[in-house]
Amino acid sequence: AKSYNITLLPGDGIGPEVISVAKNVLNLAGSIEGIEFKFNEMPMGGAALDLTGVPLPEETLTAAKQSDAVLLGAIGGYKWDKNEKHLKPETGLLHLRQGLKVFANLRPASVLPQLVDASTLKKEVAEGVDLMVVRELTGGIYFGKPRGFGTDENGQKIGFNTEVYAEYEIDRIARIAFETARKRSGKLCSVDKANVLEASMLWRERVTAISAEYPDVELSHMYVDNAAMQLVRNPKQFDTIVTNNIFGDILSDEASMITGSIGMLPSASLGASGPGLFEPIHGSAPDIAGQDKANPLATILSAAMLLKYGLGEVKAAERIELAVLDTLNEGFRTGDIHSAGNKLVGCEEMGEQVLKSV
Amino acid sequence: AKSYNITLLPGDGIGPEVISVAKNVLNLAGSIEGIEFKFNEMPMGGAALDLTGVPLPEETLTAAKQSDAVLLGAIGGYKWDKNEKHLKPETGLLHLRQGLKVFANLRPASVLPQLVDASTLKKEVAEGVDLMVVRELTGGIYFGKPRGFGTDENGQKIGFNTEVYAEYEIDRIARIAFETARKRSGKLCSVDKANVLEASMLWRERVTAISAEYPDVELSHMYVDNAAMQLVRNPKQFDTIVTNNIFGDILSDEASMITGSIGMLPSASLGASGPGLFEPIHGSAPDIAGQDKANPLATILSAAMLLKYGLGEVKAAERIELAVLDTLNEGFRTGDIHSAGNKLVGCEEMGEQVLKSV
Ligand SMILES: CC(C)[C@H](C(=O)O)[C@@H](O)C(=O)O
Ligand SMILES: CC(C)[C@H](C(=O)O)[C@@H](O)C(=O)O
Repeated sequence: AKSYNITLLPGDGIGPEVISVAKNVLNLAGSIEGIEFKFNEMPMGGAALDLTGVPLPEETLTAAKQSDAVLLGAIGGYKWDKNEKHLKPETGLLHLRQGLKVFANLRPASVLPQLVDASTLKKEVAEGVDLMVVRELTGGIYFGKPRGFGTDENGQKIGFNTEVYAEYEIDRIARIAFETARKRSGKLCSVDKANVLEASMLWRERVTAISAEYPDVELSHMYVDNAAMQLVRNPKQFDTIVTNNIFGDILSDEASMITGSIGMLPSASLGASGPGLFEPIHGSAPDIAGQDKANPLATILSAAMLLKYGLGEVKAAERIELAVLDTLNEGFRTGDIHSAGNKLVGCEEMGEQVLKSV
Repeated sequence: AKSYNITLLPGDGIGPEVISVAKNVLNLAGSIEGIEFKFNEMPMGGAALDLTGVPLPEETLTAAKQSDAVLLGAIGGYKWDKNEKHLKPETGLLHLRQGLKVFANLRPASVLPQLVDASTLKKEVAEGVDLMVVRELTGGIYFGKPRGFGTDENGQKIGFNTEVYAEYEIDRIARIAFETARKRSGKLCSVDKANVLEASMLWRERVTAISAEYPDVELSHMYVDNAAMQLVRNPKQFDTIVTNNIFGDILSDEASMITGSIGMLPSASLGASGPGLFEPIHGSAPDIAGQDKANPLATILSAAMLLKYGLGEVKAAERIELAVLDTLNEGFRTGDIHSAGNKLVGCEEMGEQVLKSV
């Protein structure tokens, strides 16, 4: 039997609950498809801060690097919100992304027919939305130097960051985006602010240059302010979107809310080689943590992305995706996606129901 | 009679059409309220490029600075899209904002009962939305230095920009925002990315410090990715939003699309003293330029903001605002906001109808 080492990072808030459910689903789908998983659970985020004093312990990063794939629950919470920067759970996540060199963040946002009513958009606008945001994840203003605090010529305190991209960083994320678009509808929209920012001008120049390698993919460009509007006006015009780290942070969250079911949305972060990082796009939801109310489907679907994109185990991945659809078709809903006529269940029972369908 | 000098910058695309209508409305409302306007029309944007070779001629900036207020139509178009940076219409606009030192950009976004169906959001989500985005307009990554192109240690071409804020820049926009919130519902939400960016950490620190001067205003903080989501999920939770230049660019456009009627939305850009800059938030719409199809209401409402915020002529401003509401109540609609049962009119006739109600 094939065997994989998976690092589990439950993290904070609802993280442990959803990871525990997803682990069971992985185990069952794996055993049916003849795959064995060895799980290694490591501390990360606020949990790691409380335990070790840092948000990403060296041992956690080493274990993650040595495994075949990493599944993360969620990190952060009020408790650590006022921490200094290097002691924030978020800083641990950024170091994990950087340490794993996962520069390509894939965030699908699609409206399932079963959940179209969950969107705040009109049915005719929301139904059929099926897009993928490809976000650059290890560059740009998140990591650019110089950064920090200083004093200007008038003695005023300043805070500053650098938005910077090098050709190779744009080229490699552009190629991932073109490949992704090619496997989907063949349409790629690159989002930037090239009418104002030099970093965006280089972005547009390189994405355009790389497009020569993908004559079958139709490339368009859009300014980020317009993209934020168009996602609300007519999200169906988009198939694959590629953009930088900060614009991707904003637009992928906007896109996910357009589906109305953030508790459903997974993500994959991939590098050129080495283990990928898979996580639900929702946060740690400290207000409902430990109450068995969380929706585990985003983490279960992240596990499916782990199988597909991380391990190439497409059959096991599809088995999980189908099980999730079956469970929704049977009417099971956690609170965040519940509507009249359906069966309200908690996190654990949702997991049980998915297991039945795997 | 009181007399004011107004610089008109018709600009490109539909700019001249909407400015011509707004000028007539200003004239009539002024004459009723005993105010005289002296208009000075100057070239700007692509029109200035074609005429003089630069997007903001020295004479235009000087005229604008010497006037009491500036009303801009729209700038830009395909024709100049590939121009080098210093020859882009957008660069002219940025220099105008900088030259007039208008650091505070007020962008109201409200859903009129008459137009609630124009929103792509469900009626119950859209109706009653009434928010104001206060965007910092002359700092941040739009103007920060160093910026440009260079080579990294591996000989790779890089493009870079600097996001930078000094205390005084944050303090002054925060005060405008608190004043604005105080005149509205007393709720202010400051949007940043303080979990990642030092510039945002200083932003949050200063906005919090300034809040001590406004104990009657309730301040909250939100990360920009969450704000992009919350605007879609439940826009009614917001009253006044304050944010930096680039986040304001993105979020104000998103907020305006939530109203569904971008052709209706005005903006005001104000400095500590000197003339303000007033412009519709829509673009130059080159595809419908010269066809008498543009919606002039955003520019007419920008003229009302000019009266209210720029000249302190509140009565004349309200006269115009009421005239616009009357015209909508009578069922007149340009194509962008038209729906069954209403009267479809062109730009000029919409102007005539507003004049009748002034
Ligand atoms: C927690 C935060 C640092 C992170 C980001 O900004 O990348 C989050 O918003 C995300 O999108 O995964
Ligand atoms: C045209 C462009 C430079 C401008 C901006 O980004 O500020 C526009 O999008 C706006 O919001 O007024």
